Amino acid sequence: MTEALARTIDHQRARFPEGLALDSGAVIAPLAVAYRTYGRLNAQRSNAIVVCHALTGDQYVAEPHPVTGKPGWWEAVVGPGRPVDTDRFFVICANVLGGCMGSSGPAEPMPDGSRPWATDFPSITIRDMVRAQKLLVEHLGIGRLLAVVGGSMGGMQVLEWAATYPEMVVAAAPIACAAYHSAQNIAFHEVGRAAIHGDPDWVGGRYWQDGRIPAKGLSVARMVAHITYLSEAALGRKFGRRLRGASALTFLEDVFEVESYLRHQGSTFVRRFDANSYLTITRAMDYFDLAAEHGGEVANAFRGTSTRFLVASFSSDWLFPTEESRALVRALNAAAANTSFVEIATDKGHDAFLLDEPVFHRALGGFLRGAAERVGV
Amino acid sequence: MTEALARTIDHQRARFPEGLALDSGAVIAPLAVAYRTYGRLNAQRSNAIVVCHALTGDQYVAEPHPVTGKPGWWEAVVGPGRPVDTDRFFVICANVLGGCMGSSGPAEPMPDGSRPWATDFPSITIRDMVRAQKLLVEHLGIGRLLAVVGGSMGGMQVLEWAATYPEMVVAAAPIACAAYHSAQNIAFHEVGRAAIHGDPDWVGGRYWQDGRIPAKGLSVARMVAHITYLSEAALGRKFGRRLRGASALTFLEDVFEVESYLRHQGSTFVRRFDANSYLTITRAMDYFDLAAEHGGEVANAFRGTSTRFLVASFSSDWLFPTEESRALVRALNAAAANTSFVEIATDKGHDAFLLDEPVFHRALGGFLRGAAERVGV
Repeated sequence: MTEALARTIDHQRARFPEGLALDSGAVIAPLAVAYRTYGRLNAQRSNAIVVCHALTGDQYVAEPHPVTGKPGWWEAVVGPGRPVDTDRFFVICANVLGGCMGSSGPAEPMPDGSRPWATDFPSITIRDMVRAQKLLVEHLGIGRLLAVVGGSMGGMQVLEWAATYPEMVVAAAPIACAAYHSAQNIAFHEVGRAAIHGDPDWVGGRYWQDGRIPAKGLSVARMVAHITYLSEAALGRKFGRRLRGASALTFLEDVFEVESYLRHQGSTFVRRFDANSYLTITRAMDYFDLAAEHGGEVANAFRGTSTRFLVASFSSDWLFPTEESRALVRALNAAAANTSFVEIATDKGHDAFLLDEPVFHRALGGFLRGAAERVGV
Repeated sequence: MTEALARTIDHQRARFPEGLALDSGAVIAPLAVAYRTYGRLNAQRSNAIVVCHALTGDQYVAEPHPVTGKPGWWEAVVGPGRPVDTDRFFVICANVLGGCMGSSGPAEPMPDGSRPWATDFPSITIRDMVRAQKLLVEHLGIGRLLAVVGGSMGGMQVLEWAATYPEMVVAAAPIACAAYHSAQNIAFHEVGRAAIHGDPDWVGGRYWQDGRIPAKGLSVARMVAHITYLSEAALGRKFGRRLRGASALTFLEDVFEVESYLRHQGSTFVRRFDANSYLTITRAMDYFDLAAEHGGEVANAFRGTSTRFLVASFSSDWLFPTEESRALVRALNAAAANTSFVEIATDKGHDAFLLDEPVFHRALGGFLRGAAERVGV
């Protein structure tokens, strides 16, 4: 399926024959970075904003998705007149390294073209993803970014951008994330990986050989992850205990609406996402730990920075609770970074960062306008 | 495996040839109820306490488990000198209807002895479980229970006992539970069921035919459930982000200690629990909704009751949050039931009800002593 996608969708890509050296010591060469852009780069090349996507997102931020036909995943935030205003800013979004929408990853052919990387794709880190994006930004002739913006795993990338290339980042907005992945989040990821590994159609990662996909395992992985993206209140409001149809007690069928919803989430996901990519990217998230990368203190990652930060959290997000954003803000303050923090009151859980949240949108829009004024855009 | 267990373990059972009529309309006949007792019934038959077990518990409350050899699951609470003091009280614990430790359930032979019930076992409810326990209690010659006590799904049974047989229950202690199963909890159960259904070794429930068990699916189900039994703080304290061994980036192996722990939880579970039982019992929990059974109001279930209640919750329990216990207490108050409520401050999550929590133990012990004094035990 994913191979079929790779053949039929003509993703826009930058190619880097020299490749990329990874944190693991491995080198991916050549490297491909698939991306989309929105808006126009100004003459001073000073209005570029990189948007970083989350675990199951991709580069199709603000346009219909080429596989599902659904609207872009962040059209509420990126577009003309939106907080990331494409009438004013030049927006770049790359498919992450390890992804399955055209960037180098497990579903893409190995350098010799013989077969997909599959499980031979090297382990990667969030910092590796950012290094690949930096190559793309330079390839586009841009030396400094007005801003880097992203939520969830996208927020982790924002933090790595600001920590690794501070001179390139005027403003950074890490949203609904944390400076590390918690034990509970690692545990949920491990459930998803166990479900994929346990699916006989995963075939040790070689499902590409005869066109199978580990649909059941990947679907279970998506189902459990999806629960963590919502809140108990959101699930309760959306579905409560509503029954699907008859109230008859049945052994096998879906009884409650929330079950059908989750199953649907699982089954549509497997049509657009590669299982080996899911394994690779969840692992990269699990590895993420800014403190460990910087001598045990998050603040060390940002000392001396002139980047301005907007940290945003959502009150009902239990995947990346507000307390973890507060800890991040304390570290930024300890590093004397110029930092704003906003906690958005919402009962929509982690997914709120993708939804219509006017307070969040005003905060982000104002922050980006302020950054633009600061550098004269 | 479960069949092997059923053959090799000589569970103590009561048999009811007349069977049991279920909420679904089906009848299970004959009915078997496996059980254990601790302590001695007094001459007045007034010191009996029923302990109700949780989803994956069984009747081996206060003695080594016959399969795993581990201590009984509630030895912290039930035993000589413990809050449920077996020097003073006669404790009965039955394997729930639908379970896999000797009571009628999917792993037990069908009435004609031809094969296990498997997916032909009827859908059951928490109230059906309690009806089976009532038959056992009467079989033991007991007309009134000093108390019914249980946590999690055990607490749901306590509530059904008090609602269905109020004249038989002097005191009721529903612990770490709620008057209904939330959409989020249903969703987590559905993930587990999807993992079992998706395991080819489940074979549509007929894995007993050639001695297979859906170990991978059941293990994933256990892993995701286990996360919900803990708290983020407990996982963080227990494992944090500790690596298992080398820090090398690997694709397939467990990297973090929390992963090994979860996998171990999954793999040991499948050796003692039947997958079809897991499907049956999780569904019974999902159906649980006292308000729906009583004209839309929980209070209706308890109007006119003379049962005394102790409701206990644990502050970091996110499976059955304190707020749901408070709602239960409000309903009991609206029904003018004599009700005490205690929220235990702990960061150990839902599992705290099984652990060494002195404040909880003092509250429960005092409550049971008070009930005993009230009826002259």
